[in-house]
Amino acid sequence: MQDRPVNAGVSGFLPSQAARLKCRSGEITGHTAGQAPGFVQGNLCILPKAYATDFAAFCQRNPKPCPIIGMGAVGDPALPDLGDIDIRTDVPRYRVFKNGECVDEPTDIRGYWTDDLVTFVLGCSFSFEQPLIDEGIPLYHIERDTVVSMYRTSIDCAPAGPFSGKMIVSMRMMTPADAIRAIQVTSRFPAVHGAPVHIGIPEAIGIKDLMAPDFGDPPPVVEKGMLPVFWACGVTPQSVVLNARPPLCITHKPGSMLITDRLNSKLAAL
Amino acid sequence: MQDRPVNAGVSGFLPSQAARLKCRSGEITGHTAGQAPGFVQGNLCILPKAYATDFAAFCQRNPKPCPIIGMGAVGDPALPDLGDIDIRTDVPRYRVFKNGECVDEPTDIRGYWTDDLVTFVLGCSFSFEQPLIDEGIPLYHIERDTVVSMYRTSIDCAPAGPFSGKMIVSMRMMTPADAIRAIQVTSRFPAVHGAPVHIGIPEAIGIKDLMAPDFGDPPPVVEKGMLPVFWACGVTPQSVVLNARPPLCITHKPGSMLITDRLNSKLAAL
Repeated sequence: MQDRPVNAGVSGFLPSQAARLKCRSGEITGHTAGQAPGFVQGNLCILPKAYATDFAAFCQRNPKPCPIIGMGAVGDPALPDLGDIDIRTDVPRYRVFKNGECVDEPTDIRGYWTDDLVTFVLGCSFSFEQPLIDEGIPLYHIERDTVVSMYRTSIDCAPAGPFSGKMIVSMRMMTPADAIRAIQVTSRFPAVHGAPVHIGIPEAIGIKDLMAPDFGDPPPVVEKGMLPVFWACGVTPQSVVLNARPPLCITHKPGSMLITDRLNSKLAAL
Repeated sequence: MQDRPVNAGVSGFLPSQAARLKCRSGEITGHTAGQAPGFVQGNLCILPKAYATDFAAFCQRNPKPCPIIGMGAVGDPALPDLGDIDIRTDVPRYRVFKNGECVDEPTDIRGYWTDDLVTFVLGCSFSFEQPLIDEGIPLYHIERDTVVSMYRTSIDCAPAGPFSGKMIVSMRMMTPADAIRAIQVTSRFPAVHGAPVHIGIPEAIGIKDLMAPDFGDPPPVVEKGMLPVFWACGVTPQSVVLNARPPLCITHKPGSMLITDRLNSKLAAL
C-alpha cells in the first residue's frame, strides 16, 4: 500500500481502497457501479505472454476502443501505478475463457494464475459519464437503470497479429446541443474512449436497427429532435480477443470492474 | 506602426500591414478573402457612443455570434492591439446606415467620422475555416467558390438595451466523423464563433428549408451520410443593430473585411 496517496484524507485510506478490499474479501461479488465514486474503474484482460505483445500492439493501434490505463509485468499480479492491487483477487467476479469459450466465473483467479500471464487494464466509459452528468446532460440508460445499448459496426479495427475485428460502439441519445457539449467534454478524456467515433447516421457505420442492439438493453424510442451519439466501446477488445481463441483469457464479468486508486478527474488531458 | 512585430520577418513588415496599406490607398476595394493568409480578418461595427455600451453588453451576453476581438476608445479611430490601424480608411469598402437604412458604400469614412463614434471589431469564421481545411475537412462553399449558406434561426439572442433578435447561423455540410473533428477544432477558437451551436436537425432551430438560405448561396443537394453543422454567424450583430435603427451605424461591406496583424493561430484558446 502506498504510504499516503495524495487524495487519501486524514485516515490515509482511500474510498477506492476500502471498496477494493471488499472485492478482495468477497463482500462485493456483483456490479461495481456506484462504488468509490470519482475513482477510475477498468476493464480487465489477462492473456498468456505469447499473445500479450500483439495485444499491446492492437491496443496501441486502436486507442479509442482499447485505451490501456494499466499493464502488468509478465507473471506479476501487481499494478502499482493503479493502487495496491493483486489482480488475482481484487475484481469481484471474473470470466475465464479457454479457446474462446467461457469455462468459469470465479470470484478469484489464484487457481488460474501462472508466471506466464500478463494483465491489461483498459479505460471504461464510466469515467466520462460522470463528467457528462455533471454538465447536466441526461443519460437515458442511467436514468432508466438499464445497460447502455451497444452495437457491432462496420468499422474495421486496425489488426495486429492474431487480433482483428469490427469496432463495437456504445450509444447515448442526446439533443444536438448536448451532443456538441458531450463531444467537447469526452475529448478531454482520451484514456477512456475520448470523443465519439460517430454521430447521427447509424446506417453509415453498419447499424441497421437502433432498437436492436447487439449488447446491452434497447434504447427508448427515438424522440424527435434527438441524435444518437456513438462512442468506441470497451467490449471491442474482449470480442477481438475471443475471436483469436487464445488457450487462456481472463476478463472481468461485465459490470464487475477493477476499482483503481486513480481519480477520474486526473484522466482529463486538459 | 509597431517597431518589430514578432512575426514580421527581416523586413520588419507584416503581410497583413502590406495588405492593409493597399486597402487604405484604395488599391483593394473588394473582397479580402485570400489576402494576408494566416492573419485574422474582422467584422466591423461602428456606433454612436449612446449605443456603444449596450452593444458591448449585447456582445458580452452573446459571445458565440458576437465575439469582440477589438474595441476602440470613444472617438478614437485607432485599434493599436490589432495593428497600426486607422479604421476610417483601412477597410476596403464600408456600408453606412442611417436609421437602419443603407445610404452609402464608400471606400473611406473620414467624412462620417466624429468624436462620438465607437469601433467594434468582431471575429469572423474565416479564422476557423483554415484550421478545418488544414485538418483535411472539405468545405463545400470554398470548393465551389460560393458564399457560405446562412439562416435565420428560432434561437433568441440574449437582449441588451435596444438590441435583440434571432441568431443567424452559417452551415457547413460534413460527414459525421468530420463533424466531430470540426467541433473539436473550432472549440479551440472561441474568439471566432467557437464550437457549433447545432448539428443535424435543421427544423429543431427553426430552419424550414436547408436549400433556401436567408443569406449567402444555397448549399449543394444533401448527400446521404452527410450532416449539416451550424455555427453562430457574424451576420447576427449586424442584423440586430439594424433592427435597433440607430441614427448612424457603419459596417464593412460583406466580404470586405478589416485585415489585422493578429495571427489566426494566436486566437487558439489551447
